[in-house]
Amino acid sequence: MTDTADYPEDHTPDGWLSEADIATARSRLPMLYVDAVPVRVDESGDVVAVGLLLRVSHDGAMTRALVSGRVLYHERVRDALLRHIEKDLGPVALPQVPASPQPFTVAEYFPTPGVTPYHDPRQHAVSMAYVVPVSGDCEPQQDALDLAWMTPEEACAEQVQVEMTGGHGYLLRQAMAHVGRLR
Amino acid sequence: MTDTADYPEDHTPDGWLSEADIATARSRLPMLYVDAVPVRVDESGDVVAVGLLLRVSHDGAMTRALVSGRVLYHERVRDALLRHIEKDLGPVALPQVPASPQPFTVAEYFPTPGVTPYHDPRQHAVSMAYVVPVSGDCEPQQDALDLAWMTPEEACAEQVQVEMTGGHGYLLRQAMAHVGRLR
Amino acid sequence: MTDTADYPEDHTPDGWLSEADIATARSRLPMLYVDAVPVRVDESGDVVAVGLLLRVSHDGAMTRALVSGRVLYHERVRDALLRHIEKDLGPVALPQVPASPQPFTVAEYFPTPGVTPYHDPRQHAVSMAYVVPVSGDCEPQQDALDLAWMTPEEACAEQVQVEMTGGHGYLLRQAMAHVGRLR
Amino acid sequence: MTDTADYPEDHTPDGWLSEADIATARSRLPMLYVDAVPVRVDESGDVVAVGLLLRVSHDGAMTRALVSGRVLYHERVRDALLRHIEKDLGPVALPQVPASPQPFTVAEYFPTPGVTPYHDPRQHAVSMAYVVPVSGDCEPQQDALDLAWMTPEEACAEQVQVEMTGGHGYLLRQAMAHVGRLR
Repeated sequence: MTDTADYPEDHTPDGWLSEADIATARSRLPMLYVDAVPVRVDESGDVVAVGLLLRVSHDGAMTRALVSGRVLYHERVRDALLRHIEKDLGPVALPQVPASPQPFTVAEYFPTPGVTPYHDPRQHAVSMAYVVPVSGDCEPQQDALDLAWMTPEEACAEQVQVEMTGGHGYLLRQAMAHVGRLR
Repeated sequence: MTDTADYPEDHTPDGWLSEADIATARSRLPMLYVDAVPVRVDESGDVVAVGLLLRVSHDGAMTRALVSGRVLYHERVRDALLRHIEKDLGPVALPQVPASPQPFTVAEYFPTPGVTPYHDPRQHAVSMAYVVPVSGDCEPQQDALDLAWMTPEEACAEQVQVEMTGGHGYLLRQAMAHVGRLR
Repeated sequence: MTDTADYPEDHTPDGWLSEADIATARSRLPMLYVDAVPVRVDESGDVVAVGLLLRVSHDGAMTRALVSGRVLYHERVRDALLRHIEKDLGPVALPQVPASPQPFTVAEYFPTPGVTPYHDPRQHAVSMAYVVPVSGDCEPQQDALDLAWMTPEEACAEQVQVEMTGGHGYLLRQAMAHVGRLR
Repeated sequence: MTDTADYPEDHTPDGWLSEADIATARSRLPMLYVDAVPVRVDESGDVVAVGLLLRVSHDGAMTRALVSGRVLYHERVRDALLRHIEKDLGPVALPQVPASPQPFTVAEYFPTPGVTPYHDPRQHAVSMAYVVPVSGDCEPQQDALDLAWMTPEEACAEQVQVEMTGGHGYLLRQAMAHVGRLR
C-alpha cells in the first residue's frame, strides 16, 4: 500500500495521536483508510482514463499508486476523500466526491501477506474504495514524480500492474470491473 | 409513474417500434426504464438539494416527479440517462452521469397496484435508478411547469410526498437513504 | 449470451407474447434479463466455488455459461431470478436470492459486437446481474450437459474464459471482482 | 450506538490493546465497526422480518438495537460480521454473511451529535453496514433481554424507532430502503 503521507495533519492538532501513539495503535488496531481511483469520464459518465501516481519507493523502485490515506479522528469519510485527492492531485483537480458513502469495495490490507489480495507491512488497514471522476487540472504533489493518465486497458495491463504494490493493481482492476471497463 | 414523453425518438427512426406496436408490447413485456434523482452537491459530495419536476396530470392535479424515461433499442443505459436528464432539465444541466452502471435500486412499476411500492397503470416498467448530481443551469422543459430545488428533508416531507405519484416519492426516499440524507 | 430457454412460459399463458411477437419485439425493444452467478460460500460468506453450465452450441462447440434468462411480464425481478436458477440448477439448489434488488452490475448485450463487452446476436438485452450463493444439491437441467464447480481462480483462467461466449466470461470476472476473488 | 461487548477478545490475546489503550485510542482515532441488520427472508429473498435486540441501557431505559461491534486487529470484516452475529444471536443462527464486502452504507458515529445521523458519545466509530439473512434458530445472548422479530413496517414505525438510540433506527430504515421494504 503506497500510502499518502498525512503527517502534517497528524502531529499538529490537539486531540490527535502523536506519531509514537499512532505507531502503537497501528500494531494493535485496524486503521481506517480511504482509497480513490481518479478517473476522467466523458459526458455519458464512461471512464476514458485512469490517473496513477508515480513514486519512488524506499528501495529506489518506481511504483504506481492510487490515492490513498487515513481517515482522521472526527473527520467524515467524504471529507477524508476530498482531502487526500486534493493533497495528491492538487487544489484544482475538482473531484466529484460520490454522493453516496457506499464504496465499490472494501480493501483489507493485512500486515501478513496472503490473507487478502492487499498487503501493508506497516499495519492492518481497512479501506473504503471509491471511483472519483476529476474534471479539473491535476498536478502531482509532494512525493509523487508524475501523474499519468492511461486508458483503463493500459492501466490493467501486465506492465503497469507489476508497478503497483500492496494490492493497488488488484484494487484498480476491481474498480474497472465496477465501471464496466475491466480489460 | 409520471413519465417523460419520448415520442420524438419513438416514431421517427427506422427500426424502432410504432406507437401501436409499443402499445402492444407494453401489455406483454416489461419495459426497460431509467429513473434519475437530480441533486445538487457540495464539494464533499454531500447532497444539499433535490430537483423535482412540477407537472399537471391528466386530471388537472399538480404532481411532482423525478426524471424518468424509457431505454430505447440499441441505446446504452448511460446514454438513456443523459438523454432524459437533458430532455427534462435542459441542455446545460451538466449532469454527472455515474461512472458505474450499478443502480442504487431497481424500481419495478407494476400495472397492478400493491405488488411493489411502484405503480404504472399503463405498463410493467422496470427502472434502474440513479442519483445524478447536476452542476449547470437547469430549466424545466416540455411539459413541466417548474423545477423546484428542495432540501432532502423538505423533499421527504409528507406534503411533498403526497404530490408524487406512482411510487416516485418512495423512490426519492430510497435515494436519500442511499446518500445518507433520509429525513 | 448463452440463453436459458424459457419457451414453456412464453407460449402458454394468456397475456404473454407469442413467439412471433417476441421475435418482433426483440428487434425493436431492449429485452429485460437477469444473470446469476451461482456460487458456493463458506460460513464467512467467502466464495469458494463458482458453478458454470456446460452446453453444446448450435455449431457443436462446447460452451460454458452463467444462469441467464428473461424477466416475464408481471414478474418481479427476484422471482425471475429464482425461476431461472431452479430451471437451470434444479428444484433443490436452495439459492439465496439477494434481499436487495441492487445488482452488482448491469450487463448490456448488444446485437452489434463491440458497443459493450457483452454481445447477443439475437437481440438487445439488458441484464441485471447478481451473485447467488446456492447451498443445496445442484443438477444441470434441460439443455445443459454438466454443471461444473470451479474455484474463482480456475473460472477466471484463460482456458475457461475462452469457452464462455457473449461476454459471460467478462461478467464472471466482474462478479469475482465484486466478491474480492478476481484472479 | 448500543454496542456489542467484545471484552473477552479484547484483553486476552497477545498483540491486542489493553482496555486502557483502547480507551486512549478511542479518543484519538476512528474505530472500525460492522453493523448487521438481521432479517428473515422468503425463498425469493424478500425480507419478511427484522430482528431487533432488546436491552436495558445504563439509565434503565429499554432500547432496541441492531447487531454491532468492533473489527479486531488482523480480523477480516466478514469474520467480524460472523463473530458479532453469533455472539448476539447465538451459535445456530446460521447467518448468510454477504459474499461481497460492499456494504449497503457506511454509518459514521460521531461523539458530537448532529454531524451525521449517527451518534456514539464514547468514540468516533465508522461502521460498514450489511443486511444479513439468518435462517437458523436465534436466541438473545449476553446482555440482551430479548430478540424480537417484526415486519419491516413495524420496525420502521415511530414507536419502535424511538426505542433505538445512536442512529440505529435511522440505519434500520436505510437498510429497509435498500431491500425495498421502507415503510
